[in-house]
Amino acid sequence: MQFTSEQRLDDGVLEREFTLGEIPGTLWTPESAAPAPLILMAHNNGLPKRDARLVARARHTAAYGYAVATIGAAGCGDRPRSAADEQARADLRRAMQVGEPVDEIFESFVGPLVEKAVPEWRTTLDALLSLPEIGGPVGYSGWTAVGIRLAVAEPRIAAAGFFAGGYVPRAQREEARQVTIPLLFLLQWDDEGNPRQRALDLFDAFGTKEKTLHANMGGHTGTPWFEVDDGNRFFGRHLK
Amino acid sequence: MQFTSEQRLDDGVLEREFTLGEIPGTLWTPESAAPAPLILMAHNNGLPKRDARLVARARHTAAYGYAVATIGAAGCGDRPRSAADEQARADLRRAMQVGEPVDEIFESFVGPLVEKAVPEWRTTLDALLSLPEIGGPVGYSGWTAVGIRLAVAEPRIAAAGFFAGGYVPRAQREEARQVTIPLLFLLQWDDEGNPRQRALDLFDAFGTKEKTLHANMGGHTGTPWFEVDDGNRFFGRHLK
Repeated sequence: MQFTSEQRLDDGVLEREFTLGEIPGTLWTPESAAPAPLILMAHNNGLPKRDARLVARARHTAAYGYAVATIGAAGCGDRPRSAADEQARADLRRAMQVGEPVDEIFESFVGPLVEKAVPEWRTTLDALLSLPEIGGPVGYSGWTAVGIRLAVAEPRIAAAGFFAGGYVPRAQREEARQVTIPLLFLLQWDDEGNPRQRALDLFDAFGTKEKTLHANMGGHTGTPWFEVDDGNRFFGRHLK
Repeated sequence: MQFTSEQRLDDGVLEREFTLGEIPGTLWTPESAAPAPLILMAHNNGLPKRDARLVARARHTAAYGYAVATIGAAGCGDRPRSAADEQARADLRRAMQVGEPVDEIFESFVGPLVEKAVPEWRTTLDALLSLPEIGGPVGYSGWTAVGIRLAVAEPRIAAAGFFAGGYVPRAQREEARQVTIPLLFLLQWDDEGNPRQRALDLFDAFGTKEKTLHANMGGHTGTPWFEVDDGNRFFGRHLK
């Protein structure tokens, strides 16, 4: 893990860019001297890791006392995309715009993205946990499909916050019942890209007994800021 | 308003029983000198106001900095019940136990209870707001049907937390769209007395844009304690 830049923010949080082989990432750590619990913050596959809302959320969470890390996983964010991926993204966007069924495009495009992203997250987790400023346990926050796969495959993940679980590849919908860690499931009531009933069905399917649903009004990007604080308190209950 | 007993609790909260005409009530006020915002905490119609969970919630909320009041409204809690009311309660319980439809019994029994409770809550509100230790604005927490009626009829209610909205009289279901104050809507995913889909439909129906749904696993009495804190923070955002 090579740190390529660092910046000390006003609230004492240290923000560092890193690379780990081909994986680009950002790590935010709080000012405190004691090793901080870690939260892996995985963004939607199409979003660059420098997205302003993502960065604001990560900084706020770090100031609250967590180490927070995000990466641009393979085929996601700013990482190089194959011509086939570009085509699939265009097909998906067009189908959503005209209201055509998107399940098959979604399955063939996002399914493999999740499969490729998860090993990179685990490699990143290994590297992060070797840093002296980071302790366990580990939480996960963000992209639902990657989070389900990680929660099932990775025993170091102790609690997770998932966002917008309307479209989730079949493989992850099926393994949702194997997720038994505490969950905070966040959805936007009128998310244009995530059908509400499917998200509610996914919430129902998780195997864990300690799951909480938070729903707010509005579209995909309308989540109120107080949910960041609610998420921090959720992790505060489970990452001891 | 006659105070009939008072007790200073360990955390400095003052707990006083009162009567206001025929209405028995309890008022909890925090230790601070400044007038506190008020929360009306209305319990399920069958529950006595000394119910241990209700009292624990009220004390915790008062220690957080709110004045909290509850009453035994007409026909509710320990108040005298007519023979017809006793019969309706027995019919409702029996129908629920054997899984028969309960809408008509519920309508003819709970509908009038709500209509009688709301004027008593408003009388109580007048009396409470005349006390120097209580300021505005006013929040409401608890029984959904009474809360809907109050939120529509009473402009002094600035924000409300509703619990378990599966069975709500028709009149209140219809006026839900007139509720425009910020709402926190709390439901238990497997509430034996409140069908989930009806509760979700009611959440959808409220006219307010600032509404948040919190759902947790388990039955009617299984709400996790952290929801009391979430409620306090919700009121903290809206009762300024």
